[in-house]
Amino acid sequence: VAPVVTLLTDFGLADGYPGVCHAVILRICPDARVIHLTHGIEPQRIAQGARALAGTIAYAPVGVHVAVVDPCVGSARRGVAIATRDGRVFVGPDNGLLRPAAEACGGIVAAHALEEPAYMLPSVSRTFHGRDVFAPVAAHVAAGVPLDRLGPAVDPASLVAAELPGHRLVGSFLEAEVDNVDRFGNIRLSVTVVELGDAFHSGRVVEVHAGDDRYYARCAETFADVAVGDIVLYEDSTGALAVGINQGDAARLMTATPGARIAIDLDPGVASSEP
Amino acid sequence: VAPVVTLLTDFGLADGYPGVCHAVILRICPDARVIHLTHGIEPQRIAQGARALAGTIAYAPVGVHVAVVDPCVGSARRGVAIATRDGRVFVGPDNGLLRPAAEACGGIVAAHALEEPAYMLPSVSRTFHGRDVFAPVAAHVAAGVPLDRLGPAVDPASLVAAELPGHRLVGSFLEAEVDNVDRFGNIRLSVTVVELGDAFHSGRVVEVHAGDDRYYARCAETFADVAVGDIVLYEDSTGALAVGINQGDAARLMTATPGARIAIDLDPGVASSEP
Amino acid sequence: VAPVVTLLTDFGLADGYPGVCHAVILRICPDARVIHLTHGIEPQRIAQGARALAGTIAYAPVGVHVAVVDPCVGSARRGVAIATRDGRVFVGPDNGLLRPAAEACGGIVAAHALEEPAYMLPSVSRTFHGRDVFAPVAAHVAAGVPLDRLGPAVDPASLVAAELPGHRLVGSFLEAEVDNVDRFGNIRLSVTVVELGDAFHSGRVVEVHAGDDRYYARCAETFADVAVGDIVLYEDSTGALAVGINQGDAARLMTATPGARIAIDLDPGVASSEP
Repeated sequence: VAPVVTLLTDFGLADGYPGVCHAVILRICPDARVIHLTHGIEPQRIAQGARALAGTIAYAPVGVHVAVVDPCVGSARRGVAIATRDGRVFVGPDNGLLRPAAEACGGIVAAHALEEPAYMLPSVSRTFHGRDVFAPVAAHVAAGVPLDRLGPAVDPASLVAAELPGHRLVGSFLEAEVDNVDRFGNIRLSVTVVELGDAFHSGRVVEVHAGDDRYYARCAETFADVAVGDIVLYEDSTGALAVGINQGDAARLMTATPGARIAIDLDPGVASSEP
Repeated sequence: VAPVVTLLTDFGLADGYPGVCHAVILRICPDARVIHLTHGIEPQRIAQGARALAGTIAYAPVGVHVAVVDPCVGSARRGVAIATRDGRVFVGPDNGLLRPAAEACGGIVAAHALEEPAYMLPSVSRTFHGRDVFAPVAAHVAAGVPLDRLGPAVDPASLVAAELPGHRLVGSFLEAEVDNVDRFGNIRLSVTVVELGDAFHSGRVVEVHAGDDRYYARCAETFADVAVGDIVLYEDSTGALAVGINQGDAARLMTATPGARIAIDLDPGVASSEP
Repeated sequence: VAPVVTLLTDFGLADGYPGVCHAVILRICPDARVIHLTHGIEPQRIAQGARALAGTIAYAPVGVHVAVVDPCVGSARRGVAIATRDGRVFVGPDNGLLRPAAEACGGIVAAHALEEPAYMLPSVSRTFHGRDVFAPVAAHVAAGVPLDRLGPAVDPASLVAAELPGHRLVGSFLEAEVDNVDRFGNIRLSVTVVELGDAFHSGRVVEVHAGDDRYYARCAETFADVAVGDIVLYEDSTGALAVGINQGDAARLMTATPGARIAIDLDPGVASSEP
């Protein structure tokens, strides 16, 4: 079976950065199958990238997984390759981006700093390690280079931890951060429905506080459970709590952007019913 | 020859939705060649997706063709796989999105509802059937699973028909809908040049009514047939009637967006000439 | 090894143009590995495309390289296939787009006009030669068709030269054009650091004139060499001189867009120091 290399970055798609990484990988490992998981992470938002990678990786074939959200490129921050118990290898900057995903893949079994120039491009720029370090290292690993050739072993406990935004739940009052706004205007929050436990009741009417405004919304399983144009609070496809509008755009209504705070009263004491 | 799976959706490219579908497909069918036809269909505009799929499919290798524009995801709407006379299989929601393309591929020879959980992901979300149902079903079909294993046969006549926007041609006066605005500002209308017949004369000057404004334009075969900055009415690469400006942006000039109405007087009684 | 076909265009990603080209290629050459280098060239900016292709091609496997920025599609401008000394073939319009990249690949050894209909689609539109001419020709070449079958030989000296924006350096005063603004707001200028020679001093403070405003900036090797929020002048990953802000957006600050002029006083006579 051909080796798989996945890419997840904050490069966006307007520029040639993802394409040149793809090219570099095929030049070193012509058999590799390259999957562009996403290049839409907000520029330099490590936490959003870490969550996206951890939430997507279980759907991907076992392979080599490059991630680049790298505000400190060219500084002393190290690059790493991390092997996990389920046979995956993560490659990228050691800034917290990779660790949650790696830990979710059965745990970390080894990590190596990227120091051996033989597995990088001959000339390494100071501003684009995606092309010059991470893509070529990943391609060499996909082609069979063992991790201990890449550089010295690193104590997994020394890997930088991700600073993920959390949430606060006091009684029925939830505060969380906007993790992502998707193309449909659905607002993903920095809390999972599992974390809410009993506080999330399907069918209940809740009150969303965004900026200075308040909106009633109904907890449900999918958009079609509420009327067209109504606001719905639901478990999204990554397990996160999300706010949407059936066939509408919640983020535009609430002017929500990644990083903003949203509060939700999960039991505002108004009438609720099963949908 | 490796099996081909194509994707056409309204997911956009800012989020990780297309990438995770790609990943799911390769996990199930590692040999598949995945083509992202487009993810730029306007959110939930089924008719635009149906036209785009029908207009593109003839250029693609025979394969498994996933399309997802799915405003009613998670509701009772069924998912289907449709086999066509020329050997293709279309997979997606039964909401009119697939039918025009399938009918254009030699006609429908069989259709099956997607009910067998063995060909979906183990856990099916209520909001992302692209990842959890359509991509895995398509990958299994690409890997050789016959359609009758996916679920019960469906009468092709019972498949939901697409509600495509049409046009009205009264004498020389045409009314149509904006189907698409491309990156160059070219405005694709909901009518083909073939449908216009004799009413479209190459070289003739016509009058375009958009909003409260009117613009002269010349019927021609390509942008370069008119002067730089002039408006041209032409048959676009899908066969549709389109409005463009040579090296300019017609959609910005006319503030045209998908779904808007445009009227064209194809014989306004002004001087015209061959280009 | 499977043949590689790369694509670089101004099509953008909102529409289905890149996807249908990918489909056409796999239909003709099912083994081809397709790399989308970028579709983000500004519409019809040939010079930007020519620079991007020339700056990227060395990172790609040897293969067939399609580029399309084609404001005169459908006119008399010819299409060409250009073979280079290092074994690559470039395919696209003869408008200057391909020539700098081809010359950078060891030089041009042969060129042929694209005239033989057998290697195009059966029906060639007047507005989309990417799909109807360049993609199919490239796929046939990838599948082994020799160049002299595509059409008559063309004298390489007759190929249209690119009109690349240059720069002016008078003493320490530099004037250049904005070649590209990337997603991070970094401004690439139409001059390389090598071309500046001794005028570029790492560590020196310079003065950037953009529009009516002036900004101090420091010459450095990477963003992290200056404080967060400070402006940095650096050699970007393509070798060009670029203006950025450490963890900020220089293009937004300076409202810089491709084609704008920027002037830089590289020796404004203010205190400077090593970073």
